[in-house]
Amino acid sequence: MAGRSVVVGVDLGGTKILSAVFDDDLRKIARKKTKTAAVNGSDAVLDNVSLSVAGALDKAKIPMADVDAIGVAVPGVFDRSTGVIIQTPNLPLSDYPLKAALEQHFSRPVWVENDVNAGTYGEYRAGAAKGYRHVLGVFPGTGIGGGLIINGELYIGSGGNAGEIGHMIIQPGGPLCGCGRRGCLEAFAGRSAMARDAVFLANSGAAPDTLAAAGTDYSAYTSKVFHRAIEAGEAAIVGVIERAAWYLGIGLANCVNLLNPEIVVVGGGLVERLGDRYLRVVEQSMRDHAMRGLADHVAVVAASLGDDATVVGAAALAAERSRA
Amino acid sequence: MAGRSVVVGVDLGGTKILSAVFDDDLRKIARKKTKTAAVNGSDAVLDNVSLSVAGALDKAKIPMADVDAIGVAVPGVFDRSTGVIIQTPNLPLSDYPLKAALEQHFSRPVWVENDVNAGTYGEYRAGAAKGYRHVLGVFPGTGIGGGLIINGELYIGSGGNAGEIGHMIIQPGGPLCGCGRRGCLEAFAGRSAMARDAVFLANSGAAPDTLAAAGTDYSAYTSKVFHRAIEAGEAAIVGVIERAAWYLGIGLANCVNLLNPEIVVVGGGLVERLGDRYLRVVEQSMRDHAMRGLADHVAVVAASLGDDATVVGAAALAAERSRA
Repeated sequence: MAGRSVVVGVDLGGTKILSAVFDDDLRKIARKKTKTAAVNGSDAVLDNVSLSVAGALDKAKIPMADVDAIGVAVPGVFDRSTGVIIQTPNLPLSDYPLKAALEQHFSRPVWVENDVNAGTYGEYRAGAAKGYRHVLGVFPGTGIGGGLIINGELYIGSGGNAGEIGHMIIQPGGPLCGCGRRGCLEAFAGRSAMARDAVFLANSGAAPDTLAAAGTDYSAYTSKVFHRAIEAGEAAIVGVIERAAWYLGIGLANCVNLLNPEIVVVGGGLVERLGDRYLRVVEQSMRDHAMRGLADHVAVVAASLGDDATVVGAAALAAERSRA
Repeated sequence: MAGRSVVVGVDLGGTKILSAVFDDDLRKIARKKTKTAAVNGSDAVLDNVSLSVAGALDKAKIPMADVDAIGVAVPGVFDRSTGVIIQTPNLPLSDYPLKAALEQHFSRPVWVENDVNAGTYGEYRAGAAKGYRHVLGVFPGTGIGGGLIINGELYIGSGGNAGEIGHMIIQPGGPLCGCGRRGCLEAFAGRSAMARDAVFLANSGAAPDTLAAAGTDYSAYTSKVFHRAIEAGEAAIVGVIERAAWYLGIGLANCVNLLNPEIVVVGGGLVERLGDRYLRVVEQSMRDHAMRGLADHVAVVAASLGDDATVVGAAALAAERSRA
């Protein structure tokens, strides 16, 4: 396969690293998942990124010399001019010159992007939003991330931080949010907010099946627990899920009113686990709360690439930026 | 002045029509204000648009033949492909083919735009947001209009209706809004919402000066009444104003988080009448409610073109669209 030109996408998460090799048409050739081992510090994380990329290339039987560019998606804030990480809550890479370190290591051009932006771009280039030009990507998980495609391009705003849908205030003085403010969308519709209500209900005796399955440890309330409650038909927990979905729809309605997108793509763990039941409540609430002329012309769909959205987007952005 | 090429901007409002003539560099040559006479029907309104444009050209001593294009800003929704008005709450022009009728009348290219978009574009091209590339324009009045400049261009969204900041829901189940929903930004921060609280306070005896000046007729609570209450230091009404400004800041914070603009331009009657005291509360609230990295890098300024923003923007857009 010598001489074949490829791009690599890397999803550098707090617990795992996923690397994948793509051809010029963004067709996936191979992928490799490794652990992040974030507790072992920045050098260990870099070693694992290296192992992950090398492993994916090895599977694809493609040498590093044929790699045009490497795109790395990280959860958090970084400096776009230098590629230095400013803040990553779940990785030991704050103030770390990630782009420079990886370019030195791989001797290939490296591009860093926010993971939600990369995921949105992946769905736009090769997933559920392919062919649209104005896309809102929403990824409810522990928090709620957002990404924007405007006029067919990833929109990052003037400082590179556009898309912060999770901290949209939808009730001044409302429930406490992880950001320290009150009434943010995340504090109603993120998984952490759902866990807060669910553990309260379980402990109060209103959700005995869930209590038996997950106990009263707040941190045990994963998407899997919520999925199990839906399967078991545990009404109190289903109510928590549907309430969160309803609030998410309000947040989406506000974005639809402001941006008038053609399509909203909803991805991430909650959607993958909770499926259509969750998404239809989100959609109905969006349509109830957005203005008619805007709500009528927007589709709401589940992301279609799953885990791969982020590596596809990171690879696509790296390829485009290297060519630019 | 024969042979000189100019563009004309028209602000077609519910009570008045403002037309202005501009040279190639958007310098104003002449302006003319007339009454709309909306109650007399669509033909009368068209006659008055015609008189207004002819009056401005007459003042400028420029013949219609030298006009490159005419931009007409209307309050409401229209079909961008045909220039047919779909809905204008304060004008008798619903379903009216405004672009076609005016092009036939003037024998010049005519471009229709939403008035808030035109106002935002005017401030961007020649006013307080000149030189920026990512701008949020907000015009609190009876309602609250918004316009977006993204990457140096007016952003209208996929259906031409982006920027509906007024119906962003900031409190589900909150106060009734004119749109029929509850808890929209407009229902907290628009002048109609302020009037609702102010007339209640005046009637209850908490605002005797304002009661004496404006009585208990809700429709009498104009921006002028609020301005007078500030001058008189009537605490209850000042409280209404500052509460509205605080809520507007929450709406702006949500937009700043989503769009990461460089500058927010606040214009319209409320800002012109209430001035810096109002705007500083709006700004502080925005900074308190937006995420740090985003709030720190955005300026909040008053619009600088006043009434002219809309005609400047309409003229500039018409000139660009005719050249495209």
